[in-house]
Amino acid sequence: MRKILVIGIGAGNPEHMTVQAVAALNRADVLLIPTKGDEKAFLADARREICDRFLENARCRILDYAVPVRRADGSYEDGVNDWHRAIATIYERTLLDDVGKDETLGLLVWGDPMLYDSTLRIVDHVRTAGRVAFEIEVIPGITSVQALCASHAITLNRIGLPVEITTGRRLAEAWPGVARDALVMLDGVEAFRRVEDPEADIWWGAYLGTPHEILLSGRLADIADTISETRRKARAAHGWIMDTYLIRRPAPEAEEGAA
Amino acid sequence: MRKILVIGIGAGNPEHMTVQAVAALNRADVLLIPTKGDEKAFLADARREICDRFLENARCRILDYAVPVRRADGSYEDGVNDWHRAIATIYERTLLDDVGKDETLGLLVWGDPMLYDSTLRIVDHVRTAGRVAFEIEVIPGITSVQALCASHAITLNRIGLPVEITTGRRLAEAWPGVARDALVMLDGVEAFRRVEDPEADIWWGAYLGTPHEILLSGRLADIADTISETRRKARAAHGWIMDTYLIRRPAPEAEEGAA
Repeated sequence: MRKILVIGIGAGNPEHMTVQAVAALNRADVLLIPTKGDEKAFLADARREICDRFLENARCRILDYAVPVRRADGSYEDGVNDWHRAIATIYERTLLDDVGKDETLGLLVWGDPMLYDSTLRIVDHVRTAGRVAFEIEVIPGITSVQALCASHAITLNRIGLPVEITTGRRLAEAWPGVARDALVMLDGVEAFRRVEDPEADIWWGAYLGTPHEILLSGRLADIADTISETRRKARAAHGWIMDTYLIRRPAPEAEEGAA
Repeated sequence: MRKILVIGIGAGNPEHMTVQAVAALNRADVLLIPTKGDEKAFLADARREICDRFLENARCRILDYAVPVRRADGSYEDGVNDWHRAIATIYERTLLDDVGKDETLGLLVWGDPMLYDSTLRIVDHVRTAGRVAFEIEVIPGITSVQALCASHAITLNRIGLPVEITTGRRLAEAWPGVARDALVMLDGVEAFRRVEDPEADIWWGAYLGTPHEILLSGRLADIADTISETRRKARAAHGWIMDTYLIRRPAPEAEEGAA
Protein backbone atom coordinates (compact mmCIF):
# COMPACT_ATOMS: atom_id res chain seq x y z
CA MET A 1 0.00 0.00 0.00
CA ARG A 2 1.04 3.60 -0.49
CA LYS A 3 2.27 5.43 2.57
CA ILE A 4 2.28 9.09 3.57
CA LEU A 5 5.04 10.10 5.96
CA VAL A 6 4.26 13.39 7.69
CA ILE A 7 7.61 14.55 9.02
CA GLY A 8 8.05 17.27 11.64
CA ILE A 9 11.25 19.13 10.75
CA GLY A 10 11.54 21.49 13.71
CA ALA A 11 11.01 25.16 14.31
CA GLY A 12 13.50 26.67 11.89
CA ASN A 13 16.87 25.32 13.02
CA PRO A 14 17.92 22.42 10.74
CA GLU A 15 19.56 20.84 13.80
CA HIS A 16 16.10 20.37 15.32
CA MET A 17 15.81 17.38 12.96
CA THR A 18 15.55 14.17 14.93
CA VAL A 19 17.37 10.98 13.99
CA GLN A 20 13.93 9.54 13.29
CA ALA A 21 13.06 12.42 10.97
CA VAL A 22 16.34 12.06 9.08
CA ALA A 23 15.62 8.35 8.59
CA ALA A 24 12.06 9.14 7.49
CA LEU A 25 13.29 11.72 5.00
CA ASN A 26 15.43 9.00 3.45
CA ARG A 27 12.58 6.47 3.36
CA ALA A 28 10.49 8.68 1.08
CA ASP A 29 10.36 7.78 -2.61
CA VAL A 30 8.80 11.15 -3.32
CA LEU A 31 9.05 14.40 -1.36
CA LEU A 32 6.35 16.95 -2.09
CA ILE A 33 7.55 20.44 -1.30
CA PRO A 34 5.82 23.81 -1.55
CA THR A 35 7.80 26.27 -3.63
CA LYS A 36 5.49 29.21 -3.64
CA GLY A 37 2.95 30.42 -1.17
CA ASP A 38 3.35 31.65 2.34
CA GLU A 39 6.67 30.07 3.19
CA LYS A 40 9.19 32.82 3.74
CA ALA A 41 12.68 32.94 2.35
CA PHE A 42 14.63 31.91 5.41
CA LEU A 43 12.27 29.07 6.19
CA ALA A 44 12.74 27.91 2.60
CA ASP A 45 16.51 28.19 3.12
CA ALA A 46 16.28 26.09 6.27
CA ARG A 47 14.26 23.47 4.42
CA ARG A 48 16.80 23.42 1.59
CA GLU A 49 19.59 23.00 4.14
CA ILE A 50 17.69 20.10 5.69
CA CYS A 51 17.44 18.34 2.32
CA ASP A 52 21.07 19.13 1.45
CA ARG A 53 22.45 17.89 4.77
CA PHE A 54 20.24 14.96 5.53
CA LEU A 55 18.79 13.54 2.31
CA GLU A 56 21.08 10.76 1.11
CA ASN A 57 18.58 8.75 -0.90
CA ALA A 58 19.66 9.67 -4.43
CA ARG A 59 16.59 7.98 -5.91
CA CYS A 60 14.16 10.22 -4.04
CA ARG A 61 12.09 12.32 -6.43
CA ILE A 62 11.52 15.85 -5.21
CA LEU A 63 8.34 17.38 -6.58
CA ASP A 64 7.26 20.89 -5.93
CA TYR A 65 3.92 22.59 -6.00
CA ALA A 66 2.59 26.10 -5.68
CA VAL A 67 0.55 26.48 -2.51
CA PRO A 68 -2.99 27.56 -3.47
CA VAL A 69 -3.97 31.04 -2.45
CA ARG A 70 -6.42 31.24 0.43
CA ARG A 71 -9.61 33.08 -0.46
CA ALA A 72 -10.20 36.15 1.64
CA ASP A 73 -13.89 36.56 0.78
CA GLY A 74 -16.57 34.60 2.65
CA SER A 75 -16.17 33.30 6.19
CA TYR A 76 -12.79 32.46 7.65
CA GLU A 77 -13.96 28.90 8.18
CA ASP A 78 -15.07 28.42 4.57
CA GLY A 79 -11.84 29.98 3.35
CA VAL A 80 -9.72 27.56 5.38
CA ASN A 81 -11.77 24.54 4.40
CA ASP A 82 -11.66 25.42 0.70
CA TRP A 83 -7.93 25.98 0.95
CA HIS A 84 -7.41 22.62 2.67
CA ARG A 85 -9.44 20.88 -0.04
CA ALA A 86 -7.38 22.54 -2.77
CA ILE A 87 -4.17 21.24 -1.19
CA ALA A 88 -5.80 17.83 -0.65
CA THR A 89 -6.42 17.67 -4.39
CA ILE A 90 -2.71 18.25 -5.00
CA TYR A 91 -1.76 15.51 -2.52
CA GLU A 92 -4.25 13.13 -4.14
CA ARG A 93 -3.04 13.78 -7.68
CA THR A 94 0.55 13.30 -6.51
CA LEU A 95 -0.30 9.96 -4.90
CA LEU A 96 -2.15 8.75 -7.99
CA ASP A 97 0.22 10.08 -10.64
CA ASP A 98 3.66 10.14 -9.06
CA VAL A 99 3.72 7.66 -6.18
CA GLY A 100 3.80 3.94 -7.00
CA LYS A 101 1.49 1.51 -5.24
CA ASP A 102 4.16 0.42 -2.76
CA GLU A 103 5.89 3.75 -2.52
CA THR A 104 6.08 6.41 0.15
CA LEU A 105 5.27 10.10 -0.10
CA GLY A 106 7.03 12.40 2.39
CA LEU A 107 5.55 15.71 3.51
CA LEU A 108 7.74 18.10 5.51
CA VAL A 109 6.03 20.10 8.25
CA TRP A 110 7.49 23.03 10.17
CA GLY A 111 7.45 22.35 13.90
CA ASP A 112 5.37 19.30 14.75
CA PRO A 113 2.36 18.13 12.73
CA MET A 114 0.32 18.03 15.97
CA LEU A 115 0.42 21.75 16.75
CA TYR A 116 -1.43 24.43 14.77
CA ASP A 117 -0.65 22.72 11.50
CA SER A 118 -3.14 21.57 8.87
CA THR A 119 -1.27 18.76 7.14
CA LEU A 120 -3.01 15.94 9.04
CA ARG A 121 -6.41 17.50 8.37
CA ILE A 122 -5.60 17.84 4.69
CA VAL A 123 -4.47 14.22 4.55
CA ASP A 124 -7.80 13.31 6.18
CA HIS A 125 -9.60 15.04 3.31
CA VAL A 126 -7.68 12.80 0.89
CA ARG A 127 -8.62 9.72 2.89
CA THR A 128 -12.27 10.74 3.12
CA ALA A 129 -12.47 11.31 -0.63
CA GLY A 130 -11.63 7.61 -0.94
CA ARG A 131 -10.00 7.67 -4.36
CA VAL A 132 -6.61 6.44 -3.18
CA ALA A 133 -5.75 4.17 -0.25
CA PHE A 134 -2.72 4.84 1.92
CA GLU A 135 -1.21 4.33 5.34
CA ILE A 136 -0.02 7.26 7.39
CA GLU A 137 2.94 7.62 9.70
CA VAL A 138 3.74 10.77 11.68
CA ILE A 139 7.20 11.79 12.87
CA PRO A 140 7.21 14.38 15.69
CA GLY A 141 9.35 17.51 15.50
CA ILE A 142 10.52 20.30 17.77
CA THR A 143 7.90 23.07 17.99
CA SER A 144 8.37 26.81 18.40
CA VAL A 145 6.94 26.35 21.91
CA GLN A 146 9.95 24.24 22.78
CA ALA A 147 12.36 26.55 20.98
CA LEU A 148 10.93 29.47 22.97
CA CYS A 149 11.33 27.71 26.32
CA ALA A 150 14.80 26.41 25.47
CA SER A 151 16.07 29.82 24.37
CA HIS A 152 14.74 31.45 27.54
CA ALA A 153 15.82 28.44 29.64
CA ILE A 154 12.37 28.30 31.23
CA THR A 155 9.75 25.66 31.84
CA LEU A 156 6.35 25.84 30.15
CA ASN A 157 4.51 24.85 33.31
CA ARG A 158 4.99 25.60 36.98
CA ILE A 159 5.11 22.64 39.37
CA GLY A 160 1.82 20.79 39.15
CA LEU A 161 0.07 23.71 37.41
CA PRO A 162 -1.69 23.58 34.05
CA VAL A 163 -0.83 25.67 31.00
CA GLU A 164 -3.10 26.61 28.14
CA ILE A 165 -1.87 26.69 24.57
CA THR A 166 -4.01 29.15 22.69
CA THR A 167 -4.15 31.69 19.88
CA GLY A 168 -3.83 35.44 19.84
CA ARG A 169 -7.42 35.75 18.70
CA ARG A 170 -8.64 33.77 21.73
CA LEU A 171 -6.42 35.65 24.16
CA ALA A 172 -7.72 38.93 22.76
CA GLU A 173 -11.25 37.83 23.70
CA ALA A 174 -10.51 36.78 27.25
CA TRP A 175 -7.89 35.26 29.50
CA PRO A 176 -8.18 31.54 28.87
CA GLY A 177 -10.02 29.92 31.74
CA VAL A 178 -8.41 28.56 34.83
CA ALA A 179 -4.77 28.25 33.81
CA ARG A 180 -2.55 31.14 34.91
CA ASP A 181 0.01 30.32 32.25
CA ALA A 182 -0.82 30.82 28.59
CA LEU A 183 1.36 29.95 25.61
CA VAL A 184 0.15 32.03 22.70
CA MET A 185 0.67 31.22 19.04
CA LEU A 186 -0.56 32.83 15.84
CA ASP A 187 -0.98 36.25 17.39
CA GLY A 188 -1.50 38.79 14.64
CA VAL A 189 -3.28 41.25 16.91
CA GLU A 190 -0.77 41.74 19.76
CA ALA A 191 -3.25 40.23 22.18
CA PHE A 192 -0.65 40.41 24.96
CA ARG A 193 -1.44 44.13 25.18
CA ARG A 194 -4.92 43.31 26.50
CA VAL A 195 -3.70 41.33 29.51
CA GLU A 196 -4.11 43.85 32.27
CA ASP A 197 -2.42 42.10 35.13
CA PRO A 198 0.34 44.24 36.68
CA GLU A 199 2.05 41.10 37.95
CA ALA A 200 2.06 39.18 34.67
CA ASP A 201 5.42 38.21 33.17
CA ILE A 202 6.10 37.49 29.50
CA TRP A 203 8.72 35.50 27.64
CA TRP A 204 8.56 36.40 23.96
CA GLY A 205 10.44 35.13 20.95
CA ALA A 206 10.39 35.71 17.20
CA TYR A 207 11.95 33.72 14.34
CA LEU A 208 12.74 31.06 16.95
CA GLY A 209 15.39 28.56 15.98
CA THR A 210 16.56 30.69 13.04
CA PRO A 211 19.60 32.95 12.79
CA HIS A 212 17.20 35.90 13.17
CA GLU A 213 15.89 34.82 16.56
CA ILE A 214 14.90 37.68 18.89
CA LEU A 215 14.13 37.18 22.58
CA LEU A 216 12.56 39.52 25.12
CA SER A 217 11.34 38.83 28.63
CA GLY A 218 10.24 40.70 31.73
CA ARG A 219 7.26 42.18 33.48
CA LEU A 220 4.60 42.43 30.75
CA ALA A 221 3.52 45.95 31.73
CA ASP A 222 7.13 47.13 31.45
CA ILE A 223 8.04 45.59 28.10
CA ALA A 224 4.79 45.42 26.10
CA ASP A 225 5.75 48.60 24.21
CA THR A 226 9.24 47.26 23.55
CA ILE A 227 7.78 44.05 22.14
CA SER A 228 5.39 45.98 19.89
CA GLU A 229 8.21 48.17 18.64
CA THR A 230 10.51 45.19 18.12
CA ARG A 231 7.78 43.37 16.19
CA ARG A 232 7.18 46.41 13.99
CA LYS A 233 10.86 46.83 13.14
CA ALA A 234 11.46 43.12 12.60
CA ARG A 235 8.46 42.81 10.33
CA ALA A 236 9.68 45.78 8.33
CA ALA A 237 13.15 44.25 8.05
CA HIS A 238 12.08 40.71 7.12
CA GLY A 239 8.75 41.34 5.43
CA TRP A 240 6.94 39.12 7.93
CA ILE A 241 7.07 38.00 11.53
CA MET A 242 6.58 34.66 13.26
CA ASP A 243 6.48 34.92 17.04
CA THR A 244 5.15 33.19 20.11
CA TYR A 245 5.14 33.89 23.82
CA LEU A 246 4.36 32.62 27.29
CA ILE A 247 2.48 34.82 29.74
CA ARG A 248 2.60 33.78 33.38
CA ARG A 249 0.27 35.34 35.91
CA PRO A 250 0.71 34.85 39.63
CA ALA A 251 -0.96 31.68 40.83
CA PRO A 252 -3.12 31.76 43.93
CA GLU A 253 -0.63 31.03 46.69
CA ALA A 254 -2.41 27.88 47.78
CA GLU A 255 -1.99 26.41 44.30
CA GLU A 256 1.56 26.93 43.28
CA GLY A 257 3.76 23.99 43.91
CA ALA A 258 0.99 22.18 45.68
CA ALA A 259 0.49 19.44 43.11
CA MET B 1 32.95 30.10 32.71
CA ARG B 2 31.41 26.72 33.47
CA LYS B 3 28.39 25.73 31.44
CA ILE B 4 25.46 23.46 32.13
CA LEU B 5 23.86 21.89 29.07
CA VAL B 6 20.36 20.62 29.79
CA ILE B 7 19.63 18.22 26.95
CA GLY B 8 16.17 16.91 26.08
CA ILE B 9 16.64 13.34 24.86
CA GLY B 10 13.10 12.51 23.78
CA ALA B 11 10.27 10.40 25.11
CA GLY B 12 11.89 6.97 25.16
CA ASN B 13 12.82 6.29 21.55
CA PRO B 14 16.56 6.93 21.07
CA GLU B 15 15.73 8.15 17.54
CA HIS B 16 13.90 11.11 19.07
CA MET B 17 17.37 12.59 19.60
CA THR B 18 17.79 15.74 17.54
CA VAL B 19 20.93 16.58 15.62
CA GLN B 20 21.33 19.48 18.07
CA ALA B 21 21.05 17.12 21.06
CA VAL B 22 23.63 14.72 19.58
CA ALA B 23 26.02 17.64 19.10
CA ALA B 24 25.35 18.86 22.64
CA LEU B 25 25.98 15.39 24.06
CA ASN B 26 29.39 15.50 22.41
CA ARG B 27 30.18 19.00 23.70
CA ALA B 28 29.92 17.90 27.33
CA ASP B 29 33.15 17.33 29.22
CA VAL B 30 31.19 15.61 31.97
CA LEU B 31 27.85 13.83 31.78
CA LEU B 32 26.06 13.41 35.10
CA ILE B 33 23.71 10.46 34.97
CA PRO B 34 21.37 9.01 37.58
CA THR B 35 21.98 5.33 38.16
CA LYS B 36 19.52 4.62 40.89
CA GLY B 37 16.22 6.14 41.77
CA ASP B 38 12.99 6.24 39.87
CA GLU B 39 14.28 5.64 36.37
CA LYS B 40 12.94 2.34 35.16
CA ALA B 41 14.91 -0.37 33.42
CA PHE B 42 13.85 0.26 29.86
CA LEU B 43 14.30 4.01 30.16
CA ALA B 44 17.79 3.31 31.48
CA ASP B 45 18.31 1.00 28.50
CA ALA B 46 17.19 3.75 26.12
CA ARG B 47 19.57 6.20 27.79
CA ARG B 48 22.41 3.71 27.51
CA GLU B 49 21.60 3.21 23.83
CA ILE B 50 21.66 6.98 23.33
CA CYS B 51 25.15 7.21 24.83
CA ASP B 52 26.37 4.14 22.93
CA ARG B 53 25.04 5.33 19.58
CA PHE B 54 25.62 9.05 19.75
CA LEU B 55 28.44 9.82 22.18
CA GLU B 56 31.68 9.97 20.20
CA ASN B 57 33.66 12.23 22.50
CA ALA B 58 36.03 9.69 24.05
CA ARG B 59 37.27 12.23 26.60
CA CYS B 60 33.83 12.79 28.08
CA ARG B 61 33.74 11.70 31.72
CA ILE B 62 30.53 9.95 32.67
CA LEU B 63 29.71 10.32 36.34
CA ASP B 64 26.79 8.68 38.00
CA TYR B 65 24.86 9.47 41.11
CA ALA B 66 22.11 7.86 43.15
CA VAL B 67 18.95 9.95 42.98
CA PRO B 68 18.00 11.00 46.53
CA VAL B 69 14.86 9.43 47.93
CA ARG B 70 11.89 11.77 48.17
CA ARG B 71 10.55 12.09 51.69
CA ALA B 72 6.96 10.97 52.03
CA ASP B 73 6.28 12.65 55.38
CA GLY B 74 5.35 16.31 55.60
CA SER B 75 3.60 18.23 52.81
CA TYR B 76 3.99 17.30 49.17
CA GLU B 77 5.41 20.75 48.49
CA ASP B 78 8.06 20.50 51.21
CA GLY B 79 8.92 17.00 50.05
CA VAL B 80 9.49 18.15 46.47
CA ASN B 81 11.48 21.21 47.49
CA ASP B 82 13.71 19.22 49.84
CA TRP B 83 14.25 16.66 47.11
CA HIS B 84 15.16 19.34 44.56
CA ARG B 85 17.64 20.88 47.02
CA ALA B 86 19.23 17.49 47.62
CA ILE B 87 19.77 17.02 43.90
CA ALA B 88 20.97 20.63 43.60
CA THR B 89 23.65 19.83 46.14
CA ILE B 90 24.82 16.95 43.94
CA TYR B 91 24.93 19.20 40.87
CA GLU B 92 26.84 21.86 42.80
CA ARG B 93 29.41 19.39 44.17
CA THR B 94 29.87 17.97 40.67
CA LEU B 95 30.46 21.44 39.21
CA LEU B 96 32.96 22.35 41.92
CA ASP B 97 34.80 19.03 42.16
CA ASP B 98 34.58 17.46 38.72
CA VAL B 99 33.99 20.20 36.14
CA GLY B 100 36.86 22.50 35.27
CA LYS B 101 36.37 26.26 35.14
CA ASP B 102 35.94 26.29 31.35
CA GLU B 103 34.25 22.96 31.08
CA THR B 104 30.70 21.87 30.34
CA LEU B 105 28.42 19.65 32.36
CA GLY B 106 25.69 17.80 30.45
CA LEU B 107 22.42 16.72 32.05
CA LEU B 108 20.13 14.38 30.12
CA VAL B 109 16.39 14.94 30.51
CA TRP B 110 13.60 12.64 29.34
CA GLY B 111 11.24 14.43 26.98
CA ASP B 112 11.87 18.18 26.99
CA PRO B 113 13.22 20.16 29.96
CA MET B 114 10.29 22.58 29.57
CA LEU B 115 7.49 20.14 30.36
CA TYR B 116 6.79 18.66 33.80
CA ASP B 117 10.47 18.26 34.52
CA SER B 118 12.40 19.67 37.46
CA THR B 119 15.92 19.96 36.08
CA LEU B 120 15.71 23.68 35.31
CA ARG B 121 14.30 24.40 38.76
CA ILE B 122 17.06 22.37 40.39
CA VAL B 123 19.68 24.24 38.36
CA ASP B 124 18.05 27.47 39.58
CA HIS B 125 18.63 26.33 43.17
CA VAL B 126 22.32 25.92 42.35
CA ARG B 127 22.44 29.39 40.83
CA THR B 128 20.61 30.95 43.78
CA ALA B 129 22.98 29.34 46.27
CA GLY B 130 25.70 31.36 44.53
CA ARG B 131 28.66 29.14 45.31
CA VAL B 132 29.50 28.38 41.67
CA ALA B 133 28.95 30.50 38.55
CA PHE B 134 27.81 28.95 35.30
CA GLU B 135 26.02 29.60 32.03
CA ILE B 136 23.06 27.50 31.01
CA GLU B 137 21.98 26.23 27.60
CA VAL B 138 18.84 24.20 26.97
CA ILE B 139 18.32 21.79 24.09
CA PRO B 140 14.69 20.91 23.37
CA GLY B 141 13.56 17.31 22.99
CA ILE B 142 10.51 15.40 21.78
CA THR B 143 7.92 15.08 24.56
CA SER B 144 5.49 12.26 25.28
CA VAL B 145 2.74 14.69 24.17
CA GLN B 146 4.25 14.67 20.70
CA ALA B 147 4.89 10.92 20.75
CA LEU B 148 1.21 10.41 21.68
CA CYS B 149 -0.08 12.59 18.86
CA ALA B 150 2.35 11.11 16.31
CA SER B 151 1.46 7.53 17.19
CA HIS B 152 -2.26 8.27 16.92
CA ALA B 153 -1.67 10.51 13.86
CA ILE B 154 -3.77 13.25 15.46
CA THR B 155 -3.38 16.94 16.14
CA LEU B 156 -3.21 18.28 19.69
CA ASN B 157 -5.47 21.22 18.90
CA ARG B 158 -8.50 21.68 16.71
CA ILE B 159 -8.44 24.54 14.21
CA GLY B 160 -8.13 27.78 16.14
CA LEU B 161 -9.11 26.15 19.44
CA PRO B 162 -7.05 26.14 22.64
CA VAL B 163 -5.82 23.06 24.47
CA GLU B 164 -4.93 22.76 28.12
CA ILE B 165 -1.97 20.71 29.28
CA THR B 166 -2.69 19.60 32.80
CA THR B 167 -2.17 16.89 35.40
CA GLY B 168 -4.34 13.99 36.49
CA ARG B 169 -4.73 15.55 39.92
CA ARG B 170 -6.12 18.78 38.40
CA LEU B 171 -8.42 16.95 36.02
CA ALA B 172 -9.74 14.89 38.93
CA GLU B 173 -10.79 18.14 40.62
CA ALA B 174 -12.58 19.69 37.66
CA TRP B 175 -12.55 19.96 33.90
CA PRO B 176 -9.91 22.58 33.16
CA GLY B 177 -11.57 25.85 32.35
CA VAL B 178 -12.58 26.92 28.89
CA ALA B 179 -10.59 24.57 26.68
CA ARG B 180 -12.53 21.56 25.43
CA ASP B 181 -9.32 19.65 24.75
CA ALA B 182 -7.14 18.52 27.63
CA LEU B 183 -3.79 16.78 27.41
CA VAL B 184 -3.24 15.02 30.71
CA MET B 185 0.11 14.01 32.14
CA LEU B 186 1.16 12.49 35.46
CA ASP B 187 -2.18 10.84 36.08
CA GLY B 188 -1.84 8.36 38.91
CA VAL B 189 -5.53 8.47 39.78
CA GLU B 190 -7.22 7.61 36.45
CA ALA B 191 -8.81 11.04 36.38
CA PHE B 192 -10.22 10.30 32.92
CA ARG B 193 -12.88 8.22 34.69
CA ARG B 194 -14.35 11.36 36.21
CA VAL B 195 -15.01 13.09 32.90
CA GLU B 196 -18.72 12.49 32.50
CA ASP B 197 -19.29 13.71 28.99
CA PRO B 198 -20.94 11.04 26.82
CA GLU B 199 -19.50 12.69 23.73
CA ALA B 200 -15.88 12.92 24.93
CA ASP B 201 -13.23 11.05 22.95
CA ILE B 202 -9.89 9.88 24.31
CA TRP B 203 -6.53 9.06 22.75
CA TRP B 204 -4.42 7.23 25.30
CA GLY B 205 -0.86 5.93 25.18
CA ALA B 206 1.57 4.25 27.55
CA TYR B 207 5.34 3.74 27.35
CA LEU B 208 5.26 6.06 24.34
CA GLY B 209 8.24 5.88 22.06
CA THR B 210 9.47 2.64 23.62
CA PRO B 211 9.15 -0.91 22.30
CA HIS B 212 6.40 -1.42 24.89
CA GLU B 213 4.16 1.33 23.54
CA ILE B 214 0.42 0.69 23.94
CA LEU B 215 -2.25 2.81 22.22
CA LEU B 216 -5.99 2.97 22.74
CA SER B 217 -8.53 5.44 21.39
CA GLY B 218 -12.26 5.85 21.08
CA ARG B 219 -15.32 7.20 22.80
CA LEU B 220 -14.22 7.69 26.43
CA ALA B 221 -17.40 6.16 27.88
CA ASP B 222 -16.85 3.04 25.78
CA ILE B 223 -13.17 2.42 26.50
CA ALA B 224 -12.54 3.81 29.98
CA ASP B 225 -12.80 0.30 31.46
CA THR B 226 -10.49 -1.09 28.80
CA ILE B 227 -7.91 1.60 29.56
CA SER B 228 -8.10 0.88 33.30
CA GLU B 229 -7.71 -2.84 32.70
CA THR B 230 -4.84 -2.28 30.23
CA ARG B 231 -3.10 0.00 32.74
CA ARG B 232 -3.49 -2.58 35.50
CA LYS B 233 -2.05 -5.41 33.41
CA ALA B 234 0.77 -3.30 31.98
CA ARG B 235 1.78 -2.06 35.40
CA ALA B 236 1.79 -5.62 36.69
CA ALA B 237 3.93 -6.74 33.73
CA HIS B 238 6.45 -3.87 33.83
CA GLY B 239 6.37 -2.91 37.50
CA TRP B 240 5.36 0.65 36.61
CA ILE B 241 3.42 2.65 34.06
CA MET B 242 4.01 5.94 32.29
CA ASP B 243 1.03 7.14 30.28
CA THR B 244 -0.59 10.25 28.89
CA TYR B 245 -3.76 11.06 27.02
CA LEU B 246 -5.78 13.64 25.16
CA ILE B 247 -9.48 14.07 25.92
CA ARG B 248 -11.51 15.99 23.38
CA ARG B 249 -15.00 17.19 24.21
CA PRO B 250 -17.35 18.58 21.58
CA ALA B 251 -16.78 22.27 21.01
CA PRO B 252 -19.75 24.61 20.87
CA GLU B 253 -20.65 24.59 17.19
CA ALA B 254 -20.06 28.28 16.81
CA GLU B 255 -16.47 27.87 17.98
CA GLU B 256 -14.99 24.98 16.11
CA GLY B 257 -13.01 25.96 13.11
CA ALA B 258 -13.96 29.58 13.51
CA ALA B 259 -10.52 30.92 14.39
